[in-house]
Amino acid sequence: MLAYLNGEYLDRARAAVSVEDRGFLFGDGVYEVTRAHDGRLFEAERHLRRLERGLAALQIARPRELESGSLIEISERLLRDDGLTSGDATVYLQITRGVAPRTHHFPPAGTSPTVYLSASSLAVPDDTRARGAAVILTTDLRWERCDLKTINLLPNIVGKQQAVAAGAFEAVFVRGDVVTEGASTNVFAVLDGELRTHPATHRILPGITRDVVLEIARESERELGVPVREVSLTSVELRRASEVFLTSTTNDVMPVTCIDGAVVGNGTPGPIARRLHAALVARMTGTAAAAR
Amino acid sequence: MLAYLNGEYLDRARAAVSVEDRGFLFGDGVYEVTRAHDGRLFEAERHLRRLERGLAALQIARPRELESGSLIEISERLLRDDGLTSGDATVYLQITRGVAPRTHHFPPAGTSPTVYLSASSLAVPDDTRARGAAVILTTDLRWERCDLKTINLLPNIVGKQQAVAAGAFEAVFVRGDVVTEGASTNVFAVLDGELRTHPATHRILPGITRDVVLEIARESERELGVPVREVSLTSVELRRASEVFLTSTTNDVMPVTCIDGAVVGNGTPGPIARRLHAALVARMTGTAAAAR
Repeated sequence: MLAYLNGEYLDRARAAVSVEDRGFLFGDGVYEVTRAHDGRLFEAERHLRRLERGLAALQIARPRELESGSLIEISERLLRDDGLTSGDATVYLQITRGVAPRTHHFPPAGTSPTVYLSASSLAVPDDTRARGAAVILTTDLRWERCDLKTINLLPNIVGKQQAVAAGAFEAVFVRGDVVTEGASTNVFAVLDGELRTHPATHRILPGITRDVVLEIARESERELGVPVREVSLTSVELRRASEVFLTSTTNDVMPVTCIDGAVVGNGTPGPIARRLHAALVARMTGTAAAAR
Repeated sequence: MLAYLNGEYLDRARAAVSVEDRGFLFGDGVYEVTRAHDGRLFEAERHLRRLERGLAALQIARPRELESGSLIEISERLLRDDGLTSGDATVYLQITRGVAPRTHHFPPAGTSPTVYLSASSLAVPDDTRARGAAVILTTDLRWERCDLKTINLLPNIVGKQQAVAAGAFEAVFVRGDVVTEGASTNVFAVLDGELRTHPATHRILPGITRDVVLEIARESERELGVPVREVSLTSVELRRASEVFLTSTTNDVMPVTCIDGAVVGNGTPGPIARRLHAALVARMTGTAAAAR
């Protein structure tokens, strides 16, 4: 497998960054994971817009790879050269503030950001999707800027590991009594005939799949029979939802059938989640127009 | 300058970690900065205890370097080989969860943690100390486990950079209306005849210098004339304190004479800060017994 690192394509096992990279010393960087299907990137422009927003918010210099479609070219070349042009894959992209002697404040102007990309094949979790996933609820320990997709991911790691240790698929964060999102997913629920998810505030990551699913749900509000509201749920509301599902770049739409050991709805993936998943996949695989 | 990396001593400029190091991908690690004076480490055992506590809290495996004084030997060798055996220096130590294909949950058992150390000379900021430092107050954006010394340092970077941009020495975090600590320092104040600092809860890092200064202040409560209380201050209380000072491994005791442009006390370093600084330096340089 290859890596792209600061202008070079190299064997990923040999790709290395300085111990003085601010990514390594401070988690001082942002990242994106973009989905690819049959070698085609899905919603790449939205990922790049979010990336640019994160760089601007953290005042990380724009690397030259952001000019004129270069990141997309690099991503496509990695997919091609790694033989990932059929089936499902992801492209990981990380930009840090670069290499400099360790100081908390920013390094001197002109310090080049570090740019790292790699592609990986993706085993789509269709088995789990068919029976529905189990989640645990856990306290949201994160900072006040969850809207930025940074590599300061310790609370997410801790949450995900708690889920794995409990035999669950995901940890869903609860702040106060408000359900925010999962450790690496957004959370939706059907409650009292409405489809709800936390609004895109500083408390959650504005997921690209969340966005696309919201779009699809709004376009097909009549067929689905549920109005869409970006209004958060409490943990009590989540537990009494008729359907709960997660969205993410690697999980698409993942029905949740168990929360902290208690069954959701009738214990099987719900109809709204299944229809939204089918519509998302149709969009991703380019069969959406045909399906309509 | 040298680096110690996973068992090897090498030129720091050539020391590199895999792009799949969890430190680089997730900020999944902990660190310590230990002070050295004339080649002797100061309070190394306390730093190691805090390190061990962080590793345990995050379930990062103990590297073999933690056995039988090895980290201290490595630190002393770096100081020696880098020619830092006279004057002031620091030893940086970072341990991450190691190298593994990227997953939020922990990598397989047996994944070796990454161990990185390096030494640097320290320019003690005595000029700033003589006139007193300026600080700004800023919102504490950090997560709920500020007691862990992790490399998830983005909020600290953002705070410190705000201070630098404002021409100040440090950013002091305020959560709600409670003064917690600085971006890389603890905060003390003399208010109404008492010496106060935030208690060592999950809201602050239990600084080693904070600990030593508290010890000194308690031992000399009678001479200093101020009882010591680990009780937080509001930002209003901080502004009306007769003295404010910061403590950290690289700054020792640093008087604050200006908060957001407003003068603290009479605008000069206060007597409590000056006496605590002298006592701390005496301890560090081994002249404490002689001074008593």
